Amino acid sequence: MNLRKSFFAAVAVAASAFSASALAQETYTLSLAQTWGPNSPILGETTEHFADMVESMSDGRLKVRVDAANKHKAPFGIFDLVRTGQYDMGHTASYYYKGTIPNAMYFTTIPFGLIAPEMYAWFYHGGGMELMQKVYEPHGLLSFPGGNTGNQMGGWFRKEINSLEDLQGLKMRTPGFAGEVMSELGVAVTNLPPGELYTALERNTIDALEWVGPALDFPMGFHQIAKYYYSGWQEPGAEVQFLINNKTWDKLPADLQNILTVAMRTAAYDMYIQSVHESGIAWDKMKEDYPDVTHKVFPPEVIEALRETTDRLLAEAAEKDPLAKEIITSQRDYLKQVRPWINISDKAYLNSVAGE
Amino acid sequence: MNLRKSFFAAVAVAASAFSASALAQETYTLSLAQTWGPNSPILGETTEHFADMVESMSDGRLKVRVDAANKHKAPFGIFDLVRTGQYDMGHTASYYYKGTIPNAMYFTTIPFGLIAPEMYAWFYHGGGMELMQKVYEPHGLLSFPGGNTGNQMGGWFRKEINSLEDLQGLKMRTPGFAGEVMSELGVAVTNLPPGELYTALERNTIDALEWVGPALDFPMGFHQIAKYYYSGWQEPGAEVQFLINNKTWDKLPADLQNILTVAMRTAAYDMYIQSVHESGIAWDKMKEDYPDVTHKVFPPEVIEALRETTDRLLAEAAEKDPLAKEIITSQRDYLKQVRPWINISDKAYLNSVAGE
Repeated sequence: MNLRKSFFAAVAVAASAFSASALAQETYTLSLAQTWGPNSPILGETTEHFADMVESMSDGRLKVRVDAANKHKAPFGIFDLVRTGQYDMGHTASYYYKGTIPNAMYFTTIPFGLIAPEMYAWFYHGGGMELMQKVYEPHGLLSFPGGNTGNQMGGWFRKEINSLEDLQGLKMRTPGFAGEVMSELGVAVTNLPPGELYTALERNTIDALEWVGPALDFPMGFHQIAKYYYSGWQEPGAEVQFLINNKTWDKLPADLQNILTVAMRTAAYDMYIQSVHESGIAWDKMKEDYPDVTHKVFPPEVIEALRETTDRLLAEAAEKDPLAKEIITSQRDYLKQVRPWINISDKAYLNSVAGE
Repeated sequence: MNLRKSFFAAVAVAASAFSASALAQETYTLSLAQTWGPNSPILGETTEHFADMVESMSDGRLKVRVDAANKHKAPFGIFDLVRTGQYDMGHTASYYYKGTIPNAMYFTTIPFGLIAPEMYAWFYHGGGMELMQKVYEPHGLLSFPGGNTGNQMGGWFRKEINSLEDLQGLKMRTPGFAGEVMSELGVAVTNLPPGELYTALERNTIDALEWVGPALDFPMGFHQIAKYYYSGWQEPGAEVQFLINNKTWDKLPADLQNILTVAMRTAAYDMYIQSVHESGIAWDKMKEDYPDVTHKVFPPEVIEALRETTDRLLAEAAEKDPLAKEIITSQRDYLKQVRPWINISDKAYLNSVAGE
């Protein structure tokens, strides 16, 4: 396949009708609302990095003003802020809008789905970009991958999980689709604001919680209380998203559209790589500072039950909505094609050097 | 760490002294010599994609003319072509210049080293970029990551390898450092031009060969003859490189330098993702068309021997050259930091869903 053709064609919007040279001296400042707070590690650094690339590549003709959640006060309302034109752009996670545009959530991640490189391959070569536009286009928006957290952990548990029995009545903070699955297995799922999590865990208000991975979990301090850190199943390669209002896009000359597109693409990849790096550092430090922190994997019967329940809930969603079915099927078929290769390459290699 | 600061700072060259706006209307065409032939899949598509991004982002002010190997006739002489200023840029693999600049080879890959995302994390956050400049700077060159092939396979074998014994006298095509290691284990290492490999394998002139991975192995047809496809150890995340002559770099205004930098970065990541995608397709197809093709992993005693020999040869290289020691140590220390995280995330996840 031809990478050149697919790159800019993935977004089904014609290049601006304006002549770029006629507009060459015009400058633009786009506003961007992000879900994340000010000085948010990794996620907030990604939008700053994106804004820097755009400004430096355009020699100042295109600037991006980033507003954090403390400014716009709507961390989970980015979709509306950009849709209504209050902001030109957004940086958020599709699955926060499960209530408004349920089909968007599959572009963040699907439990038991694709890991980060597979997810990017699906977006850029497996039809993911086209499906994402199909979901956002009716709302007057363009959407692009915005950065990957890497494989998220299954969570921090005060007690070991050795069987399905151990999940019965377990009080756990785990939101979204994963929460629904856990709930079906007897977990008492609760949601709490991030600021209350540490205390809730410390005071036994909850027995377990799922956050992200070492880089973002470390500053939260959960490892000081809960000693079992479980590998994940629910967000194997969670991708956040850039949103752009179509009207903003259309007013830009083609060269600035291209600068925006490439800067988003690089910022997204760079966030993935920064996540790998910072989770490496954080996990290293956690183990050193708290040698009693233990890594665990859920036993096969738990994984099997999580998986069956995930499959059942996804089948129900697909049943109700043809576009949901198209997206879920596309991603699952892609997994069937790409995973055998990942298994004989990275997985086989990592297993063969298991001593590390 | 601050991603913004590290991004453009990694290359220790001051921004051009020229005022960008004064030069805004000047146009530049850079020549690029690549190791790869014309219409080379993945590798050649990467340089075309790079040239497209540069031209479209700069609105035609910066163009890259790509010359394939049939044009410049020096596929393994890219380093010299760019060093002497015959070309502005190059796209090649550092380890081809083992004879001229031996320390460059570690920026392609180290056996039993980093997989692709770890490799990028090392380049961009773990000191890799700075070390790469240290090697290329005395030659008047800048170097940037240029794309990753993903984890390379250990090769195609006509017979199973069940013990170290089975390697004795085995006639195998495997070049470079991996060939040296194999040779120490009793393999009769040969090198043959790519065009002769299929016939050599068919006529038993060789018993085994190592090429790249499914995407690039598939068109070579080795799977029609040798039925055992072994997972690799020798190039866990092979990165090719862009080279730029310092004088070319210095004459460009800052915005075009930034466009070049971001386009190289994106082209490199995109090559990795395209490799994942196309190897997925090719491995799927090989298994379907040739159901007797079998995936294998080397037995632990072979892995252990390959590893001990690799460690010994690397220690010898480090002994002889302080900069080699610095690079090898940096990459190995980085692996110790990042791998435990990869193990509890992607590896644990891939193992837990082993059914796929």
